[in-house]
Amino acid sequence: MKHLLGIDDLGAEGIGEVLGLAEAFLEVTKRDIPKVPALRGKTVVSMFYEDSTRTRLSFETAAKRLSADTMTFTAGSSAVRKGESLLDTVRTVEAMGIDAIVVRHRSAGVPHRMAGWTQASVVNAGDGWHEHPTQALLDVFTLRLHRGADLAGLRVAIVGDVKHSRVARSNVKALTALGADVTLVGPPTLMPPDLSGWPVRLSNHLDEVLGTMDVYYVLRIQRERIGEALFPTLREYAARYGLTEERLARLADDILIMHPGPTNRGVEIAAAVADDPRSVITEQVANGVAVRMAVLYHLLAGDGRRPPEVLGELEAARA
Amino acid sequence: MKHLLGIDDLGAEGIGEVLGLAEAFLEVTKRDIPKVPALRGKTVVSMFYEDSTRTRLSFETAAKRLSADTMTFTAGSSAVRKGESLLDTVRTVEAMGIDAIVVRHRSAGVPHRMAGWTQASVVNAGDGWHEHPTQALLDVFTLRLHRGADLAGLRVAIVGDVKHSRVARSNVKALTALGADVTLVGPPTLMPPDLSGWPVRLSNHLDEVLGTMDVYYVLRIQRERIGEALFPTLREYAARYGLTEERLARLADDILIMHPGPTNRGVEIAAAVADDPRSVITEQVANGVAVRMAVLYHLLAGDGRRPPEVLGELEAARA
Amino acid sequence: MKHLLGIDDLGAEGIGEVLGLAEAFLEVTKRDIPKVPALRGKTVVSMFYEDSTRTRLSFETAAKRLSADTMTFTAGSSAVRKGESLLDTVRTVEAMGIDAIVVRHRSAGVPHRMAGWTQASVVNAGDGWHEHPTQALLDVFTLRLHRGADLAGLRVAIVGDVKHSRVARSNVKALTALGADVTLVGPPTLMPPDLSGWPVRLSNHLDEVLGTMDVYYVLRIQRERIGEALFPTLREYAARYGLTEERLARLADDILIMHPGPTNRGVEIAAAVADDPRSVITEQVANGVAVRMAVLYHLLAGDGRRPPEVLGELEAARA
Repeated sequence: MKHLLGIDDLGAEGIGEVLGLAEAFLEVTKRDIPKVPALRGKTVVSMFYEDSTRTRLSFETAAKRLSADTMTFTAGSSAVRKGESLLDTVRTVEAMGIDAIVVRHRSAGVPHRMAGWTQASVVNAGDGWHEHPTQALLDVFTLRLHRGADLAGLRVAIVGDVKHSRVARSNVKALTALGADVTLVGPPTLMPPDLSGWPVRLSNHLDEVLGTMDVYYVLRIQRERIGEALFPTLREYAARYGLTEERLARLADDILIMHPGPTNRGVEIAAAVADDPRSVITEQVANGVAVRMAVLYHLLAGDGRRPPEVLGELEAARA
Repeated sequence: MKHLLGIDDLGAEGIGEVLGLAEAFLEVTKRDIPKVPALRGKTVVSMFYEDSTRTRLSFETAAKRLSADTMTFTAGSSAVRKGESLLDTVRTVEAMGIDAIVVRHRSAGVPHRMAGWTQASVVNAGDGWHEHPTQALLDVFTLRLHRGADLAGLRVAIVGDVKHSRVARSNVKALTALGADVTLVGPPTLMPPDLSGWPVRLSNHLDEVLGTMDVYYVLRIQRERIGEALFPTLREYAARYGLTEERLARLADDILIMHPGPTNRGVEIAAAVADDPRSVITEQVANGVAVRMAVLYHLLAGDGRRPPEVLGELEAARA
Repeated sequence: MKHLLGIDDLGAEGIGEVLGLAEAFLEVTKRDIPKVPALRGKTVVSMFYEDSTRTRLSFETAAKRLSADTMTFTAGSSAVRKGESLLDTVRTVEAMGIDAIVVRHRSAGVPHRMAGWTQASVVNAGDGWHEHPTQALLDVFTLRLHRGADLAGLRVAIVGDVKHSRVARSNVKALTALGADVTLVGPPTLMPPDLSGWPVRLSNHLDEVLGTMDVYYVLRIQRERIGEALFPTLREYAARYGLTEERLARLADDILIMHPGPTNRGVEIAAAVADDPRSVITEQVANGVAVRMAVLYHLLAGDGRRPPEVLGELEAARA
């Protein structure tokens, strides 16, 4: 595998491989010196045409813990303002000998186009409303740490603005590939117009599914949606779709609450819910570094080795 | 000690420890390869909500010379623009396993709030008008290199806009903790409204104290203050409070001139004064790297070891 | 040699030395782990007052492959906005112990002024319309890889907006120093007003020189020139001075097409021409990293050693 553009690039087997590697790297991140020389001499450039400090820092932390060199260019930089073509930028970066491009862009499909132009590995760090595959990988990784390797039959509600959410799209693919039962929950205006082909259930009422799910995955509401009249007010949204303390009280002790962050506390999720013991929101962030280490290693180590061997090598590298 | 939020966190004894370490690191910075592996595997993130290239580069140089990994996010970045809460940002950074947050913010108290939310070490790199503790540490370090370890009785004038100066506030604390006699000099409009509890003398006339001090610490005039009618014009300010060549001529050969930089040449300090042999302004910058290495080491090495042992270890690391 | 401000700092002999080193480093960049410890412990800061992602990334890649530490500050940062003097910034950076400053600035002469103020090495990464010496070095390096070490008598056309081009200025110097015959091609409005002292030929008609040159070096048209009425429209410019497919058809198989990038496809160069086998545009970018490694090594290694010895050392460092 050369690129990670969407979850379909991996399939169930590929997801399993990456998550196996991520377990090994999670152990690395807990060491006193949480670094391995696995990607020494490799260079990873972050090209964030749309800013996202948290995702960029997560990828850069991952790359540094693998001993790769990192470079950054962000939305404000010249290549963007000058209208330099994506093609030119990608070819330039490739010609410099850079091994991987981590790209975020507000237009769906940009990472795919880039991948067609370069021998460097392209990692999609979020493209428009399309996909955000490493987010979905870290989410299923987090679920597996809590629920075991087999997610078949796990009931997951994804709540909120599914229509505009690359996180939802990638998670539907990853979760259903691993056999989970996914229900999308939100107002009709925030559901994708065409759901044929999505192996999911639908609900327009959060209260309808409360108590019937194992996992509540709450999406971030983009405040700019308000102006688009897709829902009336934040207050009304919170009342109908927010994971409030009242709703939390109706949930079992062993459910899990997830959110891709950053949370709008008091809107889609109450502060007390985000901080509840059943919330794994902070764990998701922590696991993100290990999962991104696994993705970069998977794409760049280029040796076809699998988790057990790598684990042994990482062990040896400790000394 | 977990955080460095203000000079009071250290007290006289803590200041002594940090400055002892800084002496060892000053020697490191003069080597052919001015690096030690002391913080290998640690990650330091610079969060500069208010830009300051010089302070950011100084901290990053310090971190790199300790072999720590560094990452940056600056005022223009998304987390700030999106109105992502400080709490969310801090928890995210902590969850990624980052060891230290170096934060500058235009609001006093932000580093303190952050410290309450995280297990990572928080270093205050300047918060509003409140404190800038590493600046004060590098200032007293510079004084000790010139005047010996004992600063008791040293007469220091801090000249200028004390009211809006975090540098002044931290220096008053550090200098008086070490026994120096501090006199604040400036127009009444630029003095803090309530000085009770500050163990300092006051003067509204620079000429009054000329010739009676060992050290003249000149503060930077923020040009935006002019609009606030706190003083009439730059020309008049320079005439009454600027360290001019005429005033310099009246000073002894063994006094020291200090400034936190960058200087407004011709306003609070004449170009010839800044370049005079009695000026240690450039030395302050150089010492800043060693002092920030000491602070990061003190907070992150986490082994309770003290200068002599560290010195031995640094010696060993040279090979 | 302490600084690289312009091609004249090197002369023919110096160019030869740098290009010899670049050959050694080109081999390094092709290794599995394309790094050498040559500049471990050195710090290189990129000060880009004018943004240029491609040049900045190229220098940073070069520095990292030599194991130097790198730091960046770009046009948006505070030192620039605050009106902090260049002098203050340079002295601060030098005092921090930084070894090299890579500077781009929109005013000609800024790197020269900086060099007068500091013991750090200053590398001109482009100053106004004046010089861009590393671009010219990578261009002649690319030519030598294709045409052999001796460029005497090689016929090179530089086509386009020579007047506003630091790339043209540095290339004229480098090419003529190595004995090449240079012809400048473009409309009179885009030619320098005074060419006395330039050892070049002139032509106002691209078609006039087609078929008589070994190399066509196409300059980028800055779209902001249109407003200045120096040429009527992009369409007309392309018709008269663009390297179109029609013109390409009239050229021999062994000519070379060069461009400093990024290209305006369809304006000064047709897409098919940029992608033609005779175009070495991508190679120029790749060679840029090796050449900048050579420049940084030449300035910072500080040991007077020459390519053969270095080559041996690089070989040893592989283990």
